[in-house]
Amino acid sequence: MTSLRRALPVLCLLSLPVLAADPLPSWHEGPSKHSILEFVQAVTVEGSEDYVKPAERIAVFDNDGTLWTEQPAYFEVLFAFDEVKRLAPQHPDWKTTQPFKAVLENDHQALAQSGMDGLLRIIGATHTGVSTEAFIDNAKRWLKQARHPKTGKPFNQMIYQPMLEMLDYLRSQQFKTYIVSGGDTAFMRAFAEEAYGVPPEQVIGTNFVTRFQFNNAKPQVIRTAKLAHNDDGPGKPESIDAVIGRRPILAFGNSDGDLQMLQWTAAGPGRRLMGLVHHTDAQREWAYDRHSPVGRLDKALDQAKTQHWTVVDMASEWRRIYPFEPAVKLQAQ
Amino acid sequence: MTSLRRALPVLCLLSLPVLAADPLPSWHEGPSKHSILEFVQAVTVEGSEDYVKPAERIAVFDNDGTLWTEQPAYFEVLFAFDEVKRLAPQHPDWKTTQPFKAVLENDHQALAQSGMDGLLRIIGATHTGVSTEAFIDNAKRWLKQARHPKTGKPFNQMIYQPMLEMLDYLRSQQFKTYIVSGGDTAFMRAFAEEAYGVPPEQVIGTNFVTRFQFNNAKPQVIRTAKLAHNDDGPGKPESIDAVIGRRPILAFGNSDGDLQMLQWTAAGPGRRLMGLVHHTDAQREWAYDRHSPVGRLDKALDQAKTQHWTVVDMASEWRRIYPFEPAVKLQAQ
Repeated sequence: MTSLRRALPVLCLLSLPVLAADPLPSWHEGPSKHSILEFVQAVTVEGSEDYVKPAERIAVFDNDGTLWTEQPAYFEVLFAFDEVKRLAPQHPDWKTTQPFKAVLENDHQALAQSGMDGLLRIIGATHTGVSTEAFIDNAKRWLKQARHPKTGKPFNQMIYQPMLEMLDYLRSQQFKTYIVSGGDTAFMRAFAEEAYGVPPEQVIGTNFVTRFQFNNAKPQVIRTAKLAHNDDGPGKPESIDAVIGRRPILAFGNSDGDLQMLQWTAAGPGRRLMGLVHHTDAQREWAYDRHSPVGRLDKALDQAKTQHWTVVDMASEWRRIYPFEPAVKLQAQ
Repeated sequence: MTSLRRALPVLCLLSLPVLAADPLPSWHEGPSKHSILEFVQAVTVEGSEDYVKPAERIAVFDNDGTLWTEQPAYFEVLFAFDEVKRLAPQHPDWKTTQPFKAVLENDHQALAQSGMDGLLRIIGATHTGVSTEAFIDNAKRWLKQARHPKTGKPFNQMIYQPMLEMLDYLRSQQFKTYIVSGGDTAFMRAFAEEAYGVPPEQVIGTNFVTRFQFNNAKPQVIRTAKLAHNDDGPGKPESIDAVIGRRPILAFGNSDGDLQMLQWTAAGPGRRLMGLVHHTDAQREWAYDRHSPVGRLDKALDQAKTQHWTVVDMASEWRRIYPFEPAVKLQAQ
């Protein structure tokens, strides 16, 4: 009787994930799902030695390649190209000036030749010189009209169903979910609340210097072409420190640009979860890692292996990629 | 009967603030208390034409002079002076180098002569070159030990009881309360959660550029001496735009450094509340405005009058200044 009384709470604890409705139905019963469920249980069950107070349950997620697709190119770059075309009538000189000419003529070779400098000029011309509100309107308009070249779907539908479930699950367990990503902060705010349930104040990204000024007696915050913060690599723990002021207990990324965020998360005291989405599914999404120009995953993959971080094998661990796909039937486990 | 049925909900609505326990007991029944209660009711009662969804109930507060005292000098400056004294043994050259010599010798005249440049050197020497975590530890240690020269109280007790009640009241009505202040973000995070119930991620202030680096295989975020953002004047709407990404519906300040934040808040659509704490109480706190070197209130006071913003007359509208004072008895209204 005594031993049964002692054993009961333990049994209840162990069986909790089985008895409750599955919070991650699009995840196969693999090692990643197990590590997520086990971690969340460990830090949320009161009395557990790994218990973390709700206020300190900070979870950070990269966006491109972690919450939505980043192929064949970062969606924000495709937005910038489309904006060059939309804005071209106001800039007749673009017809004869690189890199704009290359965009207007779909000249991939000339565009590639313009390199990172060319890309930054395109970003500057399409992302700055307007108020933040006007820029977000531009991004929202594009998201309504533009379609992904492979799936024909709006870009903000090319989000990962398993990650949506994870975000929802974490929030149901009183986690505060943040996006910490190299994308432009305002660009991500144009869709993050609707797509992911992440409100504007929990979106952290790359920022331009802004300037408060009056325009016809109306105050505005204008985006200038000067970069304020590049939220990639070491910029991620730096912005987490500046904006959140707490160290996350969970971090998820998919590329070497997320390595420092994962290291920063891992180095805190107590129980932590570090995860990588590994793009291994050439059929349903894309397969790429160490040699990809977009979302290169090389050093972070090595470190994940030596540090026993969670590496999600997209092909074998995700039942479904996008919300618009039918759910795959349960396999016999 | 019909008219009574119609009238009842209206009567209930009108009598709500009277029936409920007074959420602002340290405020006299004056114009400021009335405007706060009336505003909150207007934006929170469902069906009201001014109704604002909980997620959009963003309230921003300046800190120095709005939530805590800023006399005889900004408390953070007093912290910096004490830090110069604590750190002096590691910097023997400070004994003979201005402005440090002036601080070590309590030489007010030499310190005044060193001007803003001198002050910035003192801030740099005491606020940077360490990790954010180490800096916050320094601030917390100081807050435990240091005492205010006039009251003999710890600085983090020299907070305004009426403003604490307002913060609590707003949060009880599903507002998200932010600090947006010229003070160093990490310095304010050292006490804001305990003193005001404002968590680190809702504290926005002046920032130094930080650098993620490894120190003995341990990742750290180090504060460099380069200013990243000066959160004063136009810097306030700029940081609200960058960090929160939503326009506040309520803003409270006390000086010209808050003017642009109030203008930015006022210019949004729908119902808004803009407020100023006017330091009019030389007996219980300090009395200063247009000619004060600390917390000058001049242009913002003019604008508050023409725009009918809420101006809190501290002497006549606050029953109590600090939490450590006994509550003043209710006056006959």
